[in-house]
Amino acid sequence: MRNKTEILVVGAGPAGMVCAITARRYYPDKKILVLKNIANGCIPCGIPYMFSSLQSPQDNILGMDALIKNNIEVVPGEAAKIDRGSKLVTTTSSDEYQYEKLVLATGSTPVIPNIPGIDIKGVYPVYKDLDYLKSCIEEIKRSKNVLIIGGGFIGIEFADEISKIPGLTVHLVEVLPALLANSFDRDFSLLVEGKLKAEGVNTILNTKVTEILGKEKVEGVRFDNGNELKVDSIILGIGAVPNTELAKTAGLDLGKGRGIWADEYMRTSDFDIFAVGDCAGKRDFYTRRDTAVMLASTATAEARVAGANLYQLKIIRENKGTIAIYSTYIDGLVLGSAGLTEASAKKEGFEIIVGTTEGVDKHPKGLPGANKIKVKLIFARQSGILMGGQVLGGMSAGEMINIIGMAIQQRVSINELETLQMATHPYLTSAPTMYPLVLAAQDAMAKIA
Amino acid sequence: MRNKTEILVVGAGPAGMVCAITARRYYPDKKILVLKNIANGCIPCGIPYMFSSLQSPQDNILGMDALIKNNIEVVPGEAAKIDRGSKLVTTTSSDEYQYEKLVLATGSTPVIPNIPGIDIKGVYPVYKDLDYLKSCIEEIKRSKNVLIIGGGFIGIEFADEISKIPGLTVHLVEVLPALLANSFDRDFSLLVEGKLKAEGVNTILNTKVTEILGKEKVEGVRFDNGNELKVDSIILGIGAVPNTELAKTAGLDLGKGRGIWADEYMRTSDFDIFAVGDCAGKRDFYTRRDTAVMLASTATAEARVAGANLYQLKIIRENKGTIAIYSTYIDGLVLGSAGLTEASAKKEGFEIIVGTTEGVDKHPKGLPGANKIKVKLIFARQSGILMGGQVLGGMSAGEMINIIGMAIQQRVSINELETLQMATHPYLTSAPTMYPLVLAAQDAMAKIA
Repeated sequence: MRNKTEILVVGAGPAGMVCAITARRYYPDKKILVLKNIANGCIPCGIPYMFSSLQSPQDNILGMDALIKNNIEVVPGEAAKIDRGSKLVTTTSSDEYQYEKLVLATGSTPVIPNIPGIDIKGVYPVYKDLDYLKSCIEEIKRSKNVLIIGGGFIGIEFADEISKIPGLTVHLVEVLPALLANSFDRDFSLLVEGKLKAEGVNTILNTKVTEILGKEKVEGVRFDNGNELKVDSIILGIGAVPNTELAKTAGLDLGKGRGIWADEYMRTSDFDIFAVGDCAGKRDFYTRRDTAVMLASTATAEARVAGANLYQLKIIRENKGTIAIYSTYIDGLVLGSAGLTEASAKKEGFEIIVGTTEGVDKHPKGLPGANKIKVKLIFARQSGILMGGQVLGGMSAGEMINIIGMAIQQRVSINELETLQMATHPYLTSAPTMYPLVLAAQDAMAKIA
Repeated sequence: MRNKTEILVVGAGPAGMVCAITARRYYPDKKILVLKNIANGCIPCGIPYMFSSLQSPQDNILGMDALIKNNIEVVPGEAAKIDRGSKLVTTTSSDEYQYEKLVLATGSTPVIPNIPGIDIKGVYPVYKDLDYLKSCIEEIKRSKNVLIIGGGFIGIEFADEISKIPGLTVHLVEVLPALLANSFDRDFSLLVEGKLKAEGVNTILNTKVTEILGKEKVEGVRFDNGNELKVDSIILGIGAVPNTELAKTAGLDLGKGRGIWADEYMRTSDFDIFAVGDCAGKRDFYTRRDTAVMLASTATAEARVAGANLYQLKIIRENKGTIAIYSTYIDGLVLGSAGLTEASAKKEGFEIIVGTTEGVDKHPKGLPGANKIKVKLIFARQSGILMGGQVLGGMSAGEMINIIGMAIQQRVSINELETLQMATHPYLTSAPTMYPLVLAAQDAMAKIA
């Protein structure tokens, strides 16, 4: 069946949704259609919390109400081919969609490592569809020993969450010498490790899984040091690769970072085709090199840029490249990271100066619910520009990392941070005399002087 | 007795302390002395929480450890006179201190309204010294009916806090038609009123106290509408005036906003005398007119500027005027305001556009502990520059207002907010598709387009 639309969005994850809704606002008269390839997609970052925190896995569905309400048609289907000449997308079930503007929001796919035994039943990559996840949850809950492969955000959030399931022993293996090693320096990641250990998680660092053991069902793993571990389920959290096949086959340029190449306005090498979210290549904020950050928040920022600019460049893109900006929560402990870490800045060749501070997130510290708060800021040494920051604390740290993120995007200087005006309150923040962002900037300044 | 110092700081509140400590960092060899006129000063913003939340009032003392540790001498005494010619400060007990650089951090004094009966026992202005506050706490706890005069931050925080004392009925009277009327628009202040009412606080708006009744002890009040109310204690929370007497007598210029006039680097009309904190005049961020914001956070920002620049202008002041930036907490409800409100922007003559959004501060919304979050942003209509913002939510709103504060100080545009990169996490923030600062900016943008 041949259908005709004006704006066609391939993919109904956060990027596809936000792009369609933004397009509706800027182009109220255009016909917009979204192709949805997963029957019941889930909110990506909520997936770990379907295992215990949420009352029902159902509560984490990524609903289509906002699309329907915005007069956007949502149609089940998976795009198989783009004919750029006749501006036609064909689906796997041979439906055809004619477009004026096409948005690729095809997302990413979990990396499956190429090791013996990877196909045995009981190995669970983190796919996003509800029915699959429901069956994972059942299997994990029936398990006695679960191994999580990967100590990045997904891995540690799963470890925290499933450690709450009664009767379950949780193991986590990471090939690098520290958890969250790409986003946090060692002084922070050690605290994460301590927290997980306190929850009973067996963390195994510097170690690689070389083989998955078992016949019909996972029975264990073998590590590169020769040790074996008995487990009955495995969760894979070792990253994802952009889904670029559709774009590649259509002859669109790919970036060096493996995603679909896109310009400042998310236009691909074909001006009538845009790419947003995990499938789209990104450029690093600091170096302009291709980068592979995959975050729903980045995806939605890109989707807004694309949605507004489909027919005309209406909104000048104000974020000048992608920063890595993350937060996570482990049993009450909150961590955030934005921009470069000390290690990544050095590796990149920046001459930096680092400021740190430790305090309490309420004042006076005797107030109920006060947590330790620790902040680290990384500045370019000569120009004094903020390059990155890390925060560890209680709930308020989740938005504090966004103050740092705003400051990075605005290229705020060490002096500006030293004389920052901020709201402080006994129950909500450190004391005005001890506000961590200011003290960390001062600490860095003292090292320059 | 005549003493000789190099840097003399008059006042040991947050401004004096931070100025002295900053001076120590930039001038490591100078002799620094702080004159302290209150034996046991308290952390200003913690004062309401001494009445119930803190285990002991003692826990809210503003300790001098940080000064001692920084090799700063702290001496009891109240400055009575400055002889600028011979650079000599004389105290009320006739001690003399010779200085090279003098910092006035003399603070402010609560406003005492001139109404009949104001001197009767049982009327408590909010002074900052521990012994006085201890006796207040005892009296309030012995009371059955307490009236708070003033519906600003101090008033509502006291109302929230003392409503937790068993057996106490709390009344609050405000002359304006809304609570927190200078910092929040009506849609926000109505929610504060509802929250206080739910705690059993009797809020009386649009009403003025004309007389305090009683002979030896407060027995009640009369209002301007003729009504009377029986109460046995009264807390005064109607603002404060800068302590400028010392500066005035010494012939220093005063600003139009009643504080001591100070330039961009907090230098008074005498270059060897600086003024910081509540006693110092401030200039408004938007209009450059004199303003009277009195905040510990503003005070410490000024103190850092002064402390670094006492002998040489070492740090260029990066905050270009004072913004009002506040947060408060009422029984789990958090409110923040930064910059201009819709009402104050209009009154000031700005052509504005307002964006609002309401959502949930976790995602999916079924996660335990999720709160409603409401954000309002005020932009200059033509230039699209952010002028102010208000937030209402759970604990995370306390730092979210500081993202807005950072954005105001950086003169961030509506476009920059629309394409902001931020960290989102199920337990810590709204969904990336629904991040309130982005959605409020979009809402404003839609109204422009």
